[in-house]
Amino acid sequence: MQAWRAFLRAHAVLTRNLEGDLLREHELPLPSYDVLVQLVESPERKLRMTELADAVMLSRSGLTRLVDRLEREGLVVREACLTDGRGLYAVLTDAGYARLREASGTHLRGIQRWFAARLGSDDVAALQRILGRLLEEPGQPSVLSA
Amino acid sequence: MQAWRAFLRAHAVLTRNLEGDLLREHELPLPSYDVLVQLVESPERKLRMTELADAVMLSRSGLTRLVDRLEREGLVVREACLTDGRGLYAVLTDAGYARLREASGTHLRGIQRWFAARLGSDDVAALQRILGRLLEEPGQPSVLSA
Repeated sequence: MQAWRAFLRAHAVLTRNLEGDLLREHELPLPSYDVLVQLVESPERKLRMTELADAVMLSRSGLTRLVDRLEREGLVVREACLTDGRGLYAVLTDAGYARLREASGTHLRGIQRWFAARLGSDDVAALQRILGRLLEEPGQPSVLSA
Repeated sequence: MQAWRAFLRAHAVLTRNLEGDLLREHELPLPSYDVLVQLVESPERKLRMTELADAVMLSRSGLTRLVDRLEREGLVVREACLTDGRGLYAVLTDAGYARLREASGTHLRGIQRWFAARLGSDDVAALQRILGRLLEEPGQPSVLSA
């Protein structure tokens, strides 16, 4: 229970610090940054809205509101799927790409400062192993037990 | 970077699973549950709104909206501070206490299932050590380096 509370607190403190940096230097909230990153890493810089919601771990309605805001800022546009009349893509614009490039230095320095610089390489390896266990699908045997 | 992404994903998956259990069985979102827990653990089951916001890691405005909702449901009441005319406490009601008791079994089983049961005692110790490093105040020497 203590470990679980520390996990929640570490998440809250780190995301608050990272978002603080992004807001102060680029007026970009963390969820907006995450959407731009997901799009730049996707083929043709676009993703179906449903896949994007999963990737950034937002509800469908939460993502709709966020993409509305990014579209008003000119960072993203919506585009119909040619193969699926009802589906929509979110597409990164050139302005969105430029904004992400500006902000990414801040964000990577933040991850270095608040996360990586505090951990030794043993810690990082241990953390990845532990997080891997937490993310295993139930009932799916791990490589070790196979 | 990989470890940081796994950390974000583990947080998102675990809180979604825990909130899913609470919503399905008790119609109680996770932030509401957190507020009730903070209050039950406080002297006289009450906390200043400012302290409560820090404890549950919400903004002042986010907490105000959440306490509005809990007050409408009869789980919490606001009460003026006698020593500070402008301050307000949030106080857990008997109905709030009863609701928390109902929900806590579900939540503790969820933490056991999604978190504790997946980790050995070595993992828990390693995780606490690592999270402790992430939560150290910058510039404050740790016990080990003193």
